[in-house]
Parts: sequence; C-alpha cells; structure tokens
Amino acid sequence: GAMTGFPSPCGACKFLRRKCVNGCVFAPHFCHEQGAAHFAAIHKVFGASNVSKLLTGLPSIDRREAAATISYEAQARLHDPVYGCVAHIFALQQQVVNLQARLESLKAQAKVMAYQKGEARMPRPAELCPAV
Amino acid sequence: GAMTGFPSPCGACKFLRRKCVNGCVFAPHFCHEQGAAHFAAIHKVFGASNVSKLLTGLPSIDRREAAATISYEAQARLHDPVYGCVAHIFALQQQVVNLQARLESLKAQAKVMAYQKGEARMPRPAELCPAV
Repeated sequence: GAMTGFPSPCGACKFLRRKCVNGCVFAPHFCHEQGAAHFAAIHKVFGASNVSKLLTGLPSIDRREAAATISYEAQARLHDPVYGCVAHIFALQQQVVNLQARLESLKAQAKVMAYQKGEARMPRPAELCPAV
Repeated sequence: GAMTGFPSPCGACKFLRRKCVNGCVFAPHFCHEQGAAHFAAIHKVFGASNVSKLLTGLPSIDRREAAATISYEAQARLHDPVYGCVAHIFALQQQVVNLQARLESLKAQAKVMAYQKGEARMPRPAELCPAV
C-alpha cells in the first residue's frame, strides 16, 4: 500500500502485471482484489487495450457505468459463449410477450364480465380511478 | 471471384486487409460487402483476434448465432459507448415492470367488477389503484 512506498496496483494492472501509474483509467473501477478477477473476463472478451481506449474516450462521469456494463457483458459472454448477454435480452423479450398476452387475455375477460353485467364496454382506468 | 482465380476475401479479411484462407473462421459469417462494415465494429469493440478465438472454440453449428450476437453487441457499444446493449436490457426491464403494474391494476379492476356483480364489500381505493 501507499504506506510502504509500494502502492498496490489496481485490479486491472495487477492482472496485466504492469505498474499502475497515477491516473490509470482502470484504477477507479477495478479494486486490487476482486477487480483482478473481473478484469480477467474483460481482457479475455474485449482486450485491455480496446477497453482502455473506450474508457479514455468517455467523460470521467460516464466511466463507472461503462466499466460496469462492459464487465457485465464480458462475464455474460464467458458464461454463455454463444449468446452472451443477448440471452438476457431474448429472455426479457419473451417475458414481455408473455405479459402482453396475459394482459390481453385479462382485458378480454373484463369485456366478457362487462357484457354479462349489461354494459357495452369495460370502464377505462381513468373512469375507475379519477385523477385527484 | 473464384472464376478469375483471385477469390474475394470475406468481409473480415477484407477489413483486415489479409488473405482469406480456406477454412477462415469468419468467412461463413461475414460476406465480402456488408460483412466488412459489420466486422469493423466487431474489431473496434472486441478485437479480431479475441473474436477469432471465441468462434474457433465453438462447435461450427453455434458459430452463426455467436457471430450475430457479437456483431449486435459491437454495434450497440459503438452506438451507445456507455451502456452498449445493456441499454436494451434496462429498457426491457422497465417495460416488464410497467406491464406487471398494468396487469395488477387490471386484476384489481376485475375484482371490483366481480364485487359489483354479486358481492357486498367494495374494495378500498388502495386496491383499485396500486401504486404505479
């Protein structure tokens, strides 16, 4: 650590076995311990140099989110080499389709109940819940 | 083309300005014309060598989907350097939350109609309008 005169490298530089210089673009986002494991995935999938260029090209305020999403994409790709995080997109798209189908089915049921009651149509949410 | 004795390189090799050898791992997935543009994004985000390793490590039956999802991730990252395709995941997650809320609200309305049809107690407003 800094007390000994030999500062610990960040997780990225630890993984890359290089000196962690002042202002290292990875240091704020990859801590010495867990950061090295996260960075290993990033390096394997994207390459350290590509990610360094990408982060350097962003305003520093955006780098934390960029590092987090890149780390997520890298881990997803190692976990599922064929689909990566796109598997998550497919699953969510399917969930949306299922929810929309349930919503349509419930709307149809509500219409039936309205007819059974003698109404021509189902009241709109605005009619049931007037704005206050 | 093959007729002239100078086969066109695939889109990846065209972009990388290298000879497209027989059995090139990119050739089935990157055509000569549009493939070069798609590969440019892939090379910038992932690096040709990382993607080559990834595809080579997969059974050939899985490579088409892997190339397509990698191409999608690369283009999403160029379009949105901070969130990449994770922006799509966030948007879908929000859509799921909204649909679930509409579903709950519709279920509550259906309950009201059931009560109006035959039961004594009216639901309280909190049951009619769940927080959205």
